[in-house]
Amino acid sequence: MSPMHKAQDPHFAERVRASFSRQQAMTLIGARMPVIEAGYTEIHLPHKAEITQQHGFIHGGVVGMIADSAAGYAASTLTGHETGVLTVEYKLNLVAPAEGQLLIAEGSVVRYGRTLIVTRAEVFAINHGKKNLCALMQQTIMAVHGKKEKAL
Amino acid sequence: MSPMHKAQDPHFAERVRASFSRQQAMTLIGARMPVIEAGYTEIHLPHKAEITQQHGFIHGGVVGMIADSAAGYAASTLTGHETGVLTVEYKLNLVAPAEGQLLIAEGSVVRYGRTLIVTRAEVFAINHGKKNLCALMQQTIMAVHGKKEKAL
Amino acid sequence: MSPMHKAQDPHFAERVRASFSRQQAMTLIGARMPVIEAGYTEIHLPHKAEITQQHGFIHGGVVGMIADSAAGYAASTLTGHETGVLTVEYKLNLVAPAEGQLLIAEGSVVRYGRTLIVTRAEVFAINHGKKNLCALMQQTIMAVHGKKEKAL
Amino acid sequence: MSPMHKAQDPHFAERVRASFSRQQAMTLIGARMPVIEAGYTEIHLPHKAEITQQHGFIHGGVVGMIADSAAGYAASTLTGHETGVLTVEYKLNLVAPAEGQLLIAEGSVVRYGRTLIVTRAEVFAINHGKKNLCALMQQTIMAVHGKKEKAL
Repeated sequence: MSPMHKAQDPHFAERVRASFSRQQAMTLIGARMPVIEAGYTEIHLPHKAEITQQHGFIHGGVVGMIADSAAGYAASTLTGHETGVLTVEYKLNLVAPAEGQLLIAEGSVVRYGRTLIVTRAEVFAINHGKKNLCALMQQTIMAVHGKKEKAL
Repeated sequence: MSPMHKAQDPHFAERVRASFSRQQAMTLIGARMPVIEAGYTEIHLPHKAEITQQHGFIHGGVVGMIADSAAGYAASTLTGHETGVLTVEYKLNLVAPAEGQLLIAEGSVVRYGRTLIVTRAEVFAINHGKKNLCALMQQTIMAVHGKKEKAL
Repeated sequence: MSPMHKAQDPHFAERVRASFSRQQAMTLIGARMPVIEAGYTEIHLPHKAEITQQHGFIHGGVVGMIADSAAGYAASTLTGHETGVLTVEYKLNLVAPAEGQLLIAEGSVVRYGRTLIVTRAEVFAINHGKKNLCALMQQTIMAVHGKKEKAL
Repeated sequence: MSPMHKAQDPHFAERVRASFSRQQAMTLIGARMPVIEAGYTEIHLPHKAEITQQHGFIHGGVVGMIADSAAGYAASTLTGHETGVLTVEYKLNLVAPAEGQLLIAEGSVVRYGRTLIVTRAEVFAINHGKKNLCALMQQTIMAVHGKKEKAL
């Protein structure tokens, strides 16, 4: 959570939810975004065979996808409503296989700047009620003023 | 290409091809691996609506997925046939939207070590015959001796 | 701080302090390590002209140096006394100029594994009593069993 | 080398050389910049005891310092003379100890954009006439128009 962040757009949650829902790639893998706060979002992804690698765990690339999106949208909650965000780059450590029934990617803003926003994400696998860390990310986001939406 | 690399497993191409084909997540997005050389692989991904973000370009997270896999499998071409590879971490710069009819991720080994292998990937979008760089990655792979396959 | 970490070597603080004191590069820039806990260290670096860039702030490369070392030694506090640690790689975001009288790099272990340890560091500039974030790092450390010391 | 790059400032070499010479931290460690081309620079650093770690090799943090600077100045060769550059972030893999009589950091621009520039660096240790790779970096640079110099 990011109790120190204050949104400048009072409708940030609706704006982020609408943008997320237009990403067909998120629909394809079955991702949802049930938590949207100022400076923080969560993406939940239930296990299904179609998104696995050869050992039956959720594919590392898919883990990266939801980490990137959760953190990028966390940045988006803090921008003005006419400002888009771009992922400049991110760095992801995969620390354990994504073994379990559900993945939760928690994205949060670490430092908000007018042009560049630094975020982090942690991805946990929920396995029979236990929450295990499987990935950690540090990311750089660029705010593009006058553009309406998350663009990458 | 990596003309300086020599494979220790003469059947590396079959081994990598078989491992790739068992990754259901790659099937889901429509990725193929038409090029497998010693220290180098290519993943090709045709555009389709299901893998886009809201502007109709291929999703940045999907770009990361194929970069990670192409480079990880490039490492796998150089290991022994009883050695698995794990993605320890990677860092990806997204430099342009993935606009075009086809994405090509070119993964290559930069430094091969017995335990740790450093790789790079470049992702290009082919747009009406022009090849544009859209992402650059640097990655760390761990070789796990005695395990048969790419595990993350 | 890392209250969840437990050191396996009861003499970790003496061991880390001795290793740090043998790093002539740390002496050269004037760095000290006044805090050594299980899973956590701090490096303090007073401003002096010799370590600045052309605007009079401490050089970004020096900021990276103390972030890398603080986090690497945080990993070292948790290993056995016959285990060395190597920096595999790190990723550093520089978010503000290092303007002030003192820099403090806070390194901590995020995930401890037998072979690979993931750490983070934050570097703050103390400027007339205010503590401002100037850099954030995520790092991968390898434990080398049977080697006595931090090697890079 | 980067034969595809063209400098917009005809006096880029003098400008970069002057900026480098004002960085006292580079003087402190004994670094020189003997090669400045459009999109490419080299920093050379002779071994001396003051910049070593406890095993007598050049400190990993010092390796990072010259990688960061070589790549940042490579970006600076391509900007206008009234444009400063800032290191947004970098990711560095340390692949071998910096064992030898001389280090050479080769920085080059991979993708030049008006606001963001992606660069890479490779650091080699020259040991009794052999050139060994010891580090690889990927970096993001921001161009700050209307500011005259490298600022971090």
